[in-house]
Amino acid sequence: MGQNAGGGAGEFEIIAALRVLAGSPRSDLRVGSGDDAAVIDLGLGRLLLLSCDAQVEGVHFVTARIEPDRLGRRAAAGALSDIAAMGGHATHGLVSIIAPQRMAATVIEAVQRGIAAEMTRWGAAIVGGNLCRGPALSIELSVLGEVRSTDLLTRAGAREGDRLLVSGRLGAAAAGLRLASDAGLVVSTAARAEAVAAHERPAPRLDVARAIVRAGGATAAIDLSDGLAADLGHLLTASGVGAWIDAGRLPIAGSTIEVAQALGIDPLDLALHGGEDYELLLTAPAESVAALCAAVAGGSDVELTEIGEVRARGAGIRLGLTDGERALDPIGYRHF
Amino acid sequence: MGQNAGGGAGEFEIIAALRVLAGSPRSDLRVGSGDDAAVIDLGLGRLLLLSCDAQVEGVHFVTARIEPDRLGRRAAAGALSDIAAMGGHATHGLVSIIAPQRMAATVIEAVQRGIAAEMTRWGAAIVGGNLCRGPALSIELSVLGEVRSTDLLTRAGAREGDRLLVSGRLGAAAAGLRLASDAGLVVSTAARAEAVAAHERPAPRLDVARAIVRAGGATAAIDLSDGLAADLGHLLTASGVGAWIDAGRLPIAGSTIEVAQALGIDPLDLALHGGEDYELLLTAPAESVAALCAAVAGGSDVELTEIGEVRARGAGIRLGLTDGERALDPIGYRHF
Repeated sequence: MGQNAGGGAGEFEIIAALRVLAGSPRSDLRVGSGDDAAVIDLGLGRLLLLSCDAQVEGVHFVTARIEPDRLGRRAAAGALSDIAAMGGHATHGLVSIIAPQRMAATVIEAVQRGIAAEMTRWGAAIVGGNLCRGPALSIELSVLGEVRSTDLLTRAGAREGDRLLVSGRLGAAAAGLRLASDAGLVVSTAARAEAVAAHERPAPRLDVARAIVRAGGATAAIDLSDGLAADLGHLLTASGVGAWIDAGRLPIAGSTIEVAQALGIDPLDLALHGGEDYELLLTAPAESVAALCAAVAGGSDVELTEIGEVRARGAGIRLGLTDGERALDPIGYRHF
Repeated sequence: MGQNAGGGAGEFEIIAALRVLAGSPRSDLRVGSGDDAAVIDLGLGRLLLLSCDAQVEGVHFVTARIEPDRLGRRAAAGALSDIAAMGGHATHGLVSIIAPQRMAATVIEAVQRGIAAEMTRWGAAIVGGNLCRGPALSIELSVLGEVRSTDLLTRAGAREGDRLLVSGRLGAAAAGLRLASDAGLVVSTAARAEAVAAHERPAPRLDVARAIVRAGGATAAIDLSDGLAADLGHLLTASGVGAWIDAGRLPIAGSTIEVAQALGIDPLDLALHGGEDYELLLTAPAESVAALCAAVAGGSDVELTEIGEVRARGAGIRLGLTDGERALDPIGYRHF
């Protein structure tokens, strides 16, 4: 949710302004704007999670280059990922589609089918929606989730000395976006398949979240929508800490490396600043790491990798390289 | 929610398809797609209401002709109105804005301020949102509400013999839209002020809903977003009944009459088919009408007017005129 607000400073000022103009104060609001999902206290230890995500033609995707059902799946994954980042499970969704008049009903139906398939996969019901015309295809999802009060993960709990862990592999979605944008890039068939799948069918890590919550010990979490550097920056800001990342331990996807080579850029750029991986980044004290890794390996298709540690606030983000270390700017994909 | 899906048959087919592809079935879903808001059972007699509404530049408004804060208020009113139609009160909202790159941050902030002001007025908190760029300004609101299980109003409860009641006055928002679209229309200053206010600052009838629920007796309700004829059609379809409306009893706004005269059209056209009045249409047995009217007069700025009655299904919608009666087509504003 917050992340989709993207990178530009102007945008964050606006989001900050929205936080000030937040309507009526309500005593049941546990977490408002500024985390992956809003958290509303339903009482009796139950928390309601609320998140939204938008996918806009020409900004997040190019219609001609993606099958409409995959577009639907991608839109759903973005909103479901926010629920995962809070340690929750998804329950219900609202779908709002703006579609150009020229667009065939079959295309819109395929988008809806993709959304429904992804929601069904995670046990969530689509309970309503909107459809109206407009200049470009836009898919907007609001997803509800639930989490027990004791299981809630936010961005704000990281403590100095905690380890940084990330699920899955990094940069493949950004690599897939580059392949979709430049038909001339030459990479292996396997790399193309991996990157295109990551871009078109990102997997919200609700299974990873369930395993993390079951294992216990995690102190903070965020999902990677803007890229590791930017989203780590959000988590550190919310927690009031800094971090050190070991570049050599980053689980960079094989396709990321191949696409970066074809582009003549450093794979680290895609792994650190490429958006829409939708992996989970979390922090936990050293003594919880083994149990967390075992739980995730047993409860999902992916693994957790330890990539660094939480440092004191003044440290900023430091990136350890084979030949020294440097400051890492928390920047990602900029919408504005 | 459902209403914003608008008029075209193609659209309703798509919405119907979405209902089939509704993700996982869930036992806590009391009402899904096809009413003003989705209804989720929270247990202990508490129902969660969930609705969304989109306002798109060039479709629902023309940016140059409306102040951005009023645009925000209007967007909020549309989603809040759905909560009113279920007999509920609004609690929380998510705001998603798509804005062109050329748009100044101050304009976006003004939109947000308008949304926040309208939400605050009804005690609802804005708990999160999204901002991204796109080809045209689009404002999407998801609003949560709550209603006691015993107070829930749906579209589906109308029974033959029930009276039809509507809040406020009809057609002024459509009249305001015509004035905004045609600077050459000549009407009185008072009529212009009324119509422009109805168009730019529609009032969600949450206070009317509260009064209705307190009085008791209402059997079904819907809010007027597509126009009386279309929304009555939705209510009748959901309830499996027909209706008779007395044209002479319709509370047509004074501005509607003046604008219709200036346009050379029948004021009934605007009152019956003009969208975005956001009044409530309800049904109740004859013996409840007096108490409902008294409660609404005492609890809000507007009055309820009895405009007709519920008939058997086969009757369709009949419109009684001074010189006879005719069938009324349940059509409203068409997005597609």
